[in-house]
Amino acid sequence: MKRNDGRANKELRPVKMTRDFVIYPEGSVLIEMGSTRVLCNASVEEKVPRFLAGKGKGWVTAEYSLLPRSTHQRNSREAAKGKQTGRTQEIQRLIGRALRSVVDLEALGEKSITVDCDVLQADGGTRTASITGAFVALAIALDKVCKDEGKFPLKDFLAAISVGIVDGDEMLDLCYEEDSRAEVDMNIVMTGGGSYVELQGTGEEHTFDKKQLKKMVGLGEKGCSRLIEIQKEVLGKISERVGK
Amino acid sequence: MKRNDGRANKELRPVKMTRDFVIYPEGSVLIEMGSTRVLCNASVEEKVPRFLAGKGKGWVTAEYSLLPRSTHQRNSREAAKGKQTGRTQEIQRLIGRALRSVVDLEALGEKSITVDCDVLQADGGTRTASITGAFVALAIALDKVCKDEGKFPLKDFLAAISVGIVDGDEMLDLCYEEDSRAEVDMNIVMTGGGSYVELQGTGEEHTFDKKQLKKMVGLGEKGCSRLIEIQKEVLGKISERVGK
Amino acid sequence: MKRNDGRANKELRPVKMTRDFVIYPEGSVLIEMGSTRVLCNASVEEKVPRFLAGKGKGWVTAEYSLLPRSTHQRNSREAAKGKQTGRTQEIQRLIGRALRSVVDLEALGEKSITVDCDVLQADGGTRTASITGAFVALAIALDKVCKDEGKFPLKDFLAAISVGIVDGDEMLDLCYEEDSRAEVDMNIVMTGGGSYVELQGTGEEHTFDKKQLKKMVGLGEKGCSRLIEIQKEVLGKISERVGK
Amino acid sequence: MKRNDGRANKELRPVKMTRDFVIYPEGSVLIEMGSTRVLCNASVEEKVPRFLAGKGKGWVTAEYSLLPRSTHQRNSREAAKGKQTGRTQEIQRLIGRALRSVVDLEALGEKSITVDCDVLQADGGTRTASITGAFVALAIALDKVCKDEGKFPLKDFLAAISVGIVDGDEMLDLCYEEDSRAEVDMNIVMTGGGSYVELQGTGEEHTFDKKQLKKMVGLGEKGCSRLIEIQKEVLGKISERVGK
Amino acid sequence: MKRNDGRANKELRPVKMTRDFVIYPEGSVLIEMGSTRVLCNASVEEKVPRFLAGKGKGWVTAEYSLLPRSTHQRNSREAAKGKQTGRTQEIQRLIGRALRSVVDLEALGEKSITVDCDVLQADGGTRTASITGAFVALAIALDKVCKDEGKFPLKDFLAAISVGIVDGDEMLDLCYEEDSRAEVDMNIVMTGGGSYVELQGTGEEHTFDKKQLKKMVGLGEKGCSRLIEIQKEVLGKISERVGK
Amino acid sequence: MKRNDGRANKELRPVKMTRDFVIYPEGSVLIEMGSTRVLCNASVEEKVPRFLAGKGKGWVTAEYSLLPRSTHQRNSREAAKGKQTGRTQEIQRLIGRALRSVVDLEALGEKSITVDCDVLQADGGTRTASITGAFVALAIALDKVCKDEGKFPLKDFLAAISVGIVDGDEMLDLCYEEDSRAEVDMNIVMTGGGSYVELQGTGEEHTFDKKQLKKMVGLGEKGCSRLIEIQKEVLGKISERVGK
Repeated sequence: MKRNDGRANKELRPVKMTRDFVIYPEGSVLIEMGSTRVLCNASVEEKVPRFLAGKGKGWVTAEYSLLPRSTHQRNSREAAKGKQTGRTQEIQRLIGRALRSVVDLEALGEKSITVDCDVLQADGGTRTASITGAFVALAIALDKVCKDEGKFPLKDFLAAISVGIVDGDEMLDLCYEEDSRAEVDMNIVMTGGGSYVELQGTGEEHTFDKKQLKKMVGLGEKGCSRLIEIQKEVLGKISERVGK
Repeated sequence: MKRNDGRANKELRPVKMTRDFVIYPEGSVLIEMGSTRVLCNASVEEKVPRFLAGKGKGWVTAEYSLLPRSTHQRNSREAAKGKQTGRTQEIQRLIGRALRSVVDLEALGEKSITVDCDVLQADGGTRTASITGAFVALAIALDKVCKDEGKFPLKDFLAAISVGIVDGDEMLDLCYEEDSRAEVDMNIVMTGGGSYVELQGTGEEHTFDKKQLKKMVGLGEKGCSRLIEIQKEVLGKISERVGK
Repeated sequence: MKRNDGRANKELRPVKMTRDFVIYPEGSVLIEMGSTRVLCNASVEEKVPRFLAGKGKGWVTAEYSLLPRSTHQRNSREAAKGKQTGRTQEIQRLIGRALRSVVDLEALGEKSITVDCDVLQADGGTRTASITGAFVALAIALDKVCKDEGKFPLKDFLAAISVGIVDGDEMLDLCYEEDSRAEVDMNIVMTGGGSYVELQGTGEEHTFDKKQLKKMVGLGEKGCSRLIEIQKEVLGKISERVGK
Repeated sequence: MKRNDGRANKELRPVKMTRDFVIYPEGSVLIEMGSTRVLCNASVEEKVPRFLAGKGKGWVTAEYSLLPRSTHQRNSREAAKGKQTGRTQEIQRLIGRALRSVVDLEALGEKSITVDCDVLQADGGTRTASITGAFVALAIALDKVCKDEGKFPLKDFLAAISVGIVDGDEMLDLCYEEDSRAEVDMNIVMTGGGSYVELQGTGEEHTFDKKQLKKMVGLGEKGCSRLIEIQKEVLGKISERVGK
Repeated sequence: MKRNDGRANKELRPVKMTRDFVIYPEGSVLIEMGSTRVLCNASVEEKVPRFLAGKGKGWVTAEYSLLPRSTHQRNSREAAKGKQTGRTQEIQRLIGRALRSVVDLEALGEKSITVDCDVLQADGGTRTASITGAFVALAIALDKVCKDEGKFPLKDFLAAISVGIVDGDEMLDLCYEEDSRAEVDMNIVMTGGGSYVELQGTGEEHTFDKKQLKKMVGLGEKGCSRLIEIQKEVLGKISERVGK
Repeated sequence: MKRNDGRANKELRPVKMTRDFVIYPEGSVLIEMGSTRVLCNASVEEKVPRFLAGKGKGWVTAEYSLLPRSTHQRNSREAAKGKQTGRTQEIQRLIGRALRSVVDLEALGEKSITVDCDVLQADGGTRTASITGAFVALAIALDKVCKDEGKFPLKDFLAAISVGIVDGDEMLDLCYEEDSRAEVDMNIVMTGGGSYVELQGTGEEHTFDKKQLKKMVGLGEKGCSRLIEIQKEVLGKISERVGK
């Protein structure tokens, strides 16, 4: 079974992260995985949500959106419809939760960081690309606002990738065309230390067994570990502060 | 480490399903797992959503809600706030997706089934109890509307359970108190045939490794398989139609 | 003219109130009047709405909802539609107003009580059953939070019932089938002392005269007075605090 | 006990109805009762709501609004807040229901009439003034669109008035200052034939007994009957078509 | 080319401003320009929006609405639809901006003034009539709340008028019928000193050249200057405080 | 008076238009004017809005949005707030109206084109950059969907620019810093033929006179004419179809 861009089943698409794509945010990264392009902008505010007021802790959250024509067919603008879809809310909750798993909120102190993940072009894997890119934007922003004193609020690296079963074969990093005919779709979020943060496998109209689960998890581990290498290159000296 | 109700780590809470709790729906079940109580009502309509019009297929969907005082502290009513939270939308998408994995939508024909899962009392595991109870309500409704002719639209049984890591130990079927201090929380949805339908593991502010993943999945399998036995008892003769 | 359950025109349906149906609220009652079942949960908060801040007075309010399949045909979920219907708002305003008529808000002090009335099964008379049940839930909650010191904040008992004219006959406590073909529909809310709190008579597409008004009011008085006897039995010792 | 404008307790405020206040509607009336001024515009459309499609019947409905500065203190604009208050919805449901009680919807045929009641200046009794004025606007509109053929769709006249108990005295047609310190507030809607259409008595923080009810109903009857005389004068020849 | 009411191209429609049309607002004016009638009510509050808190400055803002049947065809009520149209928002932003151009916000001090412009009858030019009437309502309100001490917060007079090109001719103060077939539509807002405050020219499906622009601006200047004369008559002695 | 990037008052910022920035839309252009960057994507659908059904005409509309961190301070996401601001609606109405002025809707036929203008980075002049970029995206899309047969639906070129008065000097193409301290702000939309399409001058808290108006219009004309030259270069052969 050949993939339509000739990749091996265990291969990522070409990955590129461009720093400072937008000039205003504390951290800004355009991540590209094949034709998928997500703009990740991290904004820092010197205040916390009400439920954290006075606790000496910070907060990290994410918002996600598809530009109307980031997809093959135009999808209508959520601001015009007056509400975010369930899918959007589910994805932005996932991104925020994943980021918080590697942030030391006490070390961050009373700051809020919002990472906006706006998909400019969608070709599958936008939620995992968002997590991988958002981590880099977050690291850049934290490097800017957390000067030398004390502990750096990032405990570890974080990356995410999709895996799936297409025509019976386990594959890494599905593009849109593969994703839309996949029997099973799984998103894996991992740390630099090789632990799982989030693992979401879904078989709409199909199911999967233990062996397939194991194979998918194995592919995902390799993918995340490769993405973290690339994050380190992009972050350069900042990457040395992570976990310190 | 003892659990606060004295259960073993691999043990379910007492499970009870009451049929026909409400008299109007085509299928109605009150499921209780310990103190968690969810009312699952399946409603059948002789029409399909627009995107399925004229395709000869049916649709199954779910809605989920917490009654305002089903929880320790009153949470405000979504209808009064004018929108459903991201959590609610995420859960109802999960329930619908899980149910559809065991429904033969062609065999169902041009009908829509909505399963309302309204939580009367919440003590952890409401989304998995909803799936387990919704399956039974769905089976009763289908038994009522699909008379002898042809294939029964349910391909297999379906149940769901939560597992987690609390104070370093893997445990089955977490109650609220355990859930709120769990390091890792995982929901597992399985079929009667022992396949996975959905597997969602999350470690907010913690992570988990391969060994822990394996242990949790093992516990979940046993839990789902026990729940399916109970479903069969509750469904009685209807359970013989499943998969036929 | 026989009623379809054989009752006399001046007879109530069987009434049952189950205390502590849900374990978390300060006061919880499931009221059943025939097939109508409403879950009434009273929640106490140690704060008041802004317009009462610093006045040393409390507040009592109510929310009302039909579960989607509490009715013969499924009605769509208000949280999903993003707003409460006019009917819902009218009913919850009525319940709150009625409850406040027997509460001494100064004696209550700076507390807010919200009584949620969620209809599990609807067979006519849900708004009056809500008032009758909400009063009991409120009394239980007040008994819990108002310890011996001082005046008990309930000045009197409170119950409500529907009356109507069906096929020319005045009848007490209409079920859904009677209600939907009634020429006139009236809701009466009364205190233990026999005064009127609210009286709402409506003749959509019909009208009524002075004699009919008098007859309906007479039936309603007897109904309310019987309901208050039942409330006293359910409340037991708590009922002795009312009016003290 | 003197009223602050010197009226007797059984006396209406000065009533004035100006026809054709706005030039576009099929029926337009500005009703003034003392300082209360409501603009009632009836609009006819040659279509019916979906639930009446193909039944050969028409529909009559009403909308109600307070201009932001029709009141002593400015109240915020409902369009800006994005929703109508419960009070607004309750009032417009009442107006619509009351109007429909005197309309023969079959004789109307497949038309919809919306009567907009916009309060320009509010000094108590806006909902009853709306009903009384809306009836006249409706009659003018029906006279315009229902040419000689067949039955005129208005079966009877319709008027409404408020009564209340202020400082222990029953009074007719309360102004704002009286209304805001009333112990009991009642709205009465009656036909030209002297039947009740709607009767809503409310005693927030007070109650009322049978004698008081009787007195209030008596005052209301006289008030409605005087208002219907005025409607006849305003309608002139149109009033002869009512009930024919 | 004759205009349908016989006016010359450079002529305004009959203008009338009625003070104190509503009794509660600090300033109330009904402005009529031909058949266009707008009720302008200015409300003063002793507080400022959050972004101005503690700056010692005041704020002036406007809201605009068409009554549902102020137009030839009924347009649906924005409060019922749950949101204001883009057109409404654009117009109320324009009115507020225009008013603020002649208000000395420091001299006003920490007060907010909201001018509600509710169109009772619309025959073209409602936004410019709103500005012209709102200025007068504002002046009356300021005269009431700014007693002799210090500077009067109005720096200059303000009026607005529409001009357009209809069938190739430049015309002043278009009525609805002219507006709807105009090739170019321009709104001009000017001060008593003859300066421009806002100038908005639009040629949907048409364009205009420099000569036409000049002619339209010339007509608009004359119209505004005539309107300011009328404002002075209506304001009487208050007009002497403007600019002092 | 020097501008902070050393430009002359009559000079545009560096302009760049990148075609096919996103691969899915029928027409896609990234326009950059200095640091302002707007992504303009034109989407074609083979249907028209209801009000045009069956008239043989097409429709062109626009949507506009600022990415949350396209600005110096993060502004909250409109989809999360559940509605578009008045500013957004005003801008997208302007863009749509401007585009339609050069489109022959009959020649377009029953198609709808939506141009999404999403601001990636905002440094002043986003609405005029949107118009200039949207025209190019529209031309590319029309070239793709309107094959050789018949009239090309674009009647002329279209560009827009801002002008303003800053510290008393008229200037072309204001950046954010200039715009925020400008006394007067004017947006000019012109065709290739040198006619005005839209002219919006605003002097919040300032006014302007006839001489200043003339100077601003003169600067704007030169700016638009230079932008149209650049559009022609970017469009290449497509530009020859315009007006044919």
